[in-house]
Amino acid sequence: MKMLLKNITVLPMAEPGKIIEKGYVLINGNLIEAVGSGDPPAGEYEKVIDGTNYLVMPGLINTHTHAAMTMLRSYADDLPLMEWLQTKIWPMEDRLTGDDIYWGTMLAIIEMIKSGTTTFTDMYFHMDRVAQAVEETGIRAVLSRGMIGVGPENQLAIEQSRQLIEQWQGAANGRITFMLGPHAPYTCPPDYLKQVADLARETGAGINIHVAETLDEINTINRDYGVSSVVYLEKAGIFEFPVTAAHCVHLSDEDIAILKKYGVGVAHNPESNMKLASGIAPVPRMLEEGVPVGLGTDGASSNNDLDMLQETRTCALLHKVNNMDPTVLPAEQALTMATALGAKALHLGDQIGCLRPGYKADMILINLNQPHMIPRYDLIANLVYAGKASDVDTVIIDGRIVMENRQLTTIDEKQVLEKCKEIAARLVHNKD
Amino acid sequence: MKMLLKNITVLPMAEPGKIIEKGYVLINGNLIEAVGSGDPPAGEYEKVIDGTNYLVMPGLINTHTHAAMTMLRSYADDLPLMEWLQTKIWPMEDRLTGDDIYWGTMLAIIEMIKSGTTTFTDMYFHMDRVAQAVEETGIRAVLSRGMIGVGPENQLAIEQSRQLIEQWQGAANGRITFMLGPHAPYTCPPDYLKQVADLARETGAGINIHVAETLDEINTINRDYGVSSVVYLEKAGIFEFPVTAAHCVHLSDEDIAILKKYGVGVAHNPESNMKLASGIAPVPRMLEEGVPVGLGTDGASSNNDLDMLQETRTCALLHKVNNMDPTVLPAEQALTMATALGAKALHLGDQIGCLRPGYKADMILINLNQPHMIPRYDLIANLVYAGKASDVDTVIIDGRIVMENRQLTTIDEKQVLEKCKEIAARLVHNKD
Repeated sequence: MKMLLKNITVLPMAEPGKIIEKGYVLINGNLIEAVGSGDPPAGEYEKVIDGTNYLVMPGLINTHTHAAMTMLRSYADDLPLMEWLQTKIWPMEDRLTGDDIYWGTMLAIIEMIKSGTTTFTDMYFHMDRVAQAVEETGIRAVLSRGMIGVGPENQLAIEQSRQLIEQWQGAANGRITFMLGPHAPYTCPPDYLKQVADLARETGAGINIHVAETLDEINTINRDYGVSSVVYLEKAGIFEFPVTAAHCVHLSDEDIAILKKYGVGVAHNPESNMKLASGIAPVPRMLEEGVPVGLGTDGASSNNDLDMLQETRTCALLHKVNNMDPTVLPAEQALTMATALGAKALHLGDQIGCLRPGYKADMILINLNQPHMIPRYDLIANLVYAGKASDVDTVIIDGRIVMENRQLTTIDEKQVLEKCKEIAARLVHNKD
Repeated sequence: MKMLLKNITVLPMAEPGKIIEKGYVLINGNLIEAVGSGDPPAGEYEKVIDGTNYLVMPGLINTHTHAAMTMLRSYADDLPLMEWLQTKIWPMEDRLTGDDIYWGTMLAIIEMIKSGTTTFTDMYFHMDRVAQAVEETGIRAVLSRGMIGVGPENQLAIEQSRQLIEQWQGAANGRITFMLGPHAPYTCPPDYLKQVADLARETGAGINIHVAETLDEINTINRDYGVSSVVYLEKAGIFEFPVTAAHCVHLSDEDIAILKKYGVGVAHNPESNMKLASGIAPVPRMLEEGVPVGLGTDGASSNNDLDMLQETRTCALLHKVNNMDPTVLPAEQALTMATALGAKALHLGDQIGCLRPGYKADMILINLNQPHMIPRYDLIANLVYAGKASDVDTVIIDGRIVMENRQLTTIDEKQVLEKCKEIAARLVHNKD
């Protein structure tokens, strides 16, 4: 299908500072064919969108979440970390069936599309059901089956990961990427990480892992192995593969140099790190060193939403005060983290994250005629510091309109909401 | 007019933890007559709202802003503080006419109503035009004319403040409260503060002032007077009056004890303090001491929106990570800051901030049937951690519906947006 967006403000995120005030984007099939200013080329289009008063920009990229944890939203908040995990989150997760995870993922995808996310990165279980939800809804995703090396399912996780990759790698017209998901340094001993590395070599898949999220982790790894989490993973050979490392809150200069050396992508989750009081990641330093740092929401039980515009804003504000310097992480840099840099952190920087011919047609239209976006002296500052999820009007993924005028086209929203309420009622009831 | 909200979830914010799952609120004129559970009392009502799937709670109270600075939104961001003020904000403010301030305030009021704010606190100039906007739109406000003791208009500011209080104190059916607005310790020398105190005594008005916002201020006051900002104001006799002190970022234990002793209200502005890298206020300690700390957005040039739900969320997240303790500032405490405690910080705690018979009928209806608010294990956690400005459906102020189903009833939104765009174009053009 050929589709044209015209008379629209274009923010390609392909080079710093570039904004096309009255431009066009031409989509052919699932790819961007042209991006330009002024009148679009003549031609036959099956769909034409007049973008007056709208902005088009790359879809937002959530580099770290656990989508189905929407089912645990508001189930446990404001608790000490281990109490939260051990008495609330883990027992509840034990009760989640494949169906629950399918519907919870559907709920997450609704929320993500409605707030402008076109790609999300997921680590969870029953990942065949997550892949099913991705396939049905039209969103793009990087999926991994969480692998707990110290858990009873450690070998099952290896086997399932192999099968998932065989079945789903590149599925849904290339919208699905599978990675391996060793959970974290403190749950994956060296011999297990060796198995993971062997599987990565065998399948060609990348690796998604939590790294240096808490001081407890740092202390545990240091006690047991005498090194930092990052050095521990380097020694285990994990960084020989394309890696997306979530959190990276507690890093030394040496750790940052290692991430840079191996081209590790980082998923920064400022709101989850704030809410769980994990700490504040040294993002400005990583960016200075050229480490690709994207943004993630983490799961809805530690955020509690999946709103990437809000995450971008929080990121920009947090690092200013943390460095006591208002020039740190200016609006455009933060927005790059949510788009082009996020794509790089997922090792998809040649396919998504900016509006450029040959890239996947993943983009969002934002309604600029809102009281909180006026005046418009600076478009990007307005977007990052005042933009809201509800300003996202239309979402295109892989050349397909999945939301238009805030109406979802691929999902029965009402059905999903009702289904998730039912599941939540059952989960709480079973607890008693 | 008698109005009834029925079949509605009620969050009165009048006592901890209280939620009425299926309740009612009865409004008579501009006051709340009854709040209860189950079936409402029989009677004749001019307006009945069925609140199925909705929550009603007290309107949000913005304890510190400069409303007309919406006209400067996105004009200058990500700059060092003094460069931002001296080369951008102050020159632009010099070009603002009374008309500009009227329309900028109208824009702010639109944004505030649409995000659930029913009372705002403003310090600016041309305050007669701000009062006009408040009167016309139906919102509630605590207004003060900024007074720069070291500036050329210092005596004019005294005189205008006296006149504004005479003309507007208690106007608009009591919706307008005027305070005196000495700008800050570093712009108001002791002899000027004595004039302000004399005027407070003469008029009975309270005082709104910026206090301890930056380390620069602390250093300046300490250099010139050998004391902290708080002690400086205490010695000047300012705390003899009802005071709302904005920011209070840099405080010693002694300062907090002084605020407590005099019953000073504090307006905490987490997002502005983050964006300008002013620092992080010791909010948990102040709350522990019983100092009434409300929330404010500050002006739209340092935020850049006026979204109080988002401010509440940021407050809850920021203090957790700042204290490395996820139990700090739980959701309900943060929401109390945005409502009942905010009212106390403005010395209006006996009139607004909770749903209780005899209180002003200021309340908002929130649509709970949203993907990001499901499941609902914990209503308050959902509101604070996942609620959005766009969830606010209906707003009632002083017993009058000012927004219903997201449509404003007292303001021509389109006209204001267009007018503000015109003004912004002129302001930028005049600069060149």
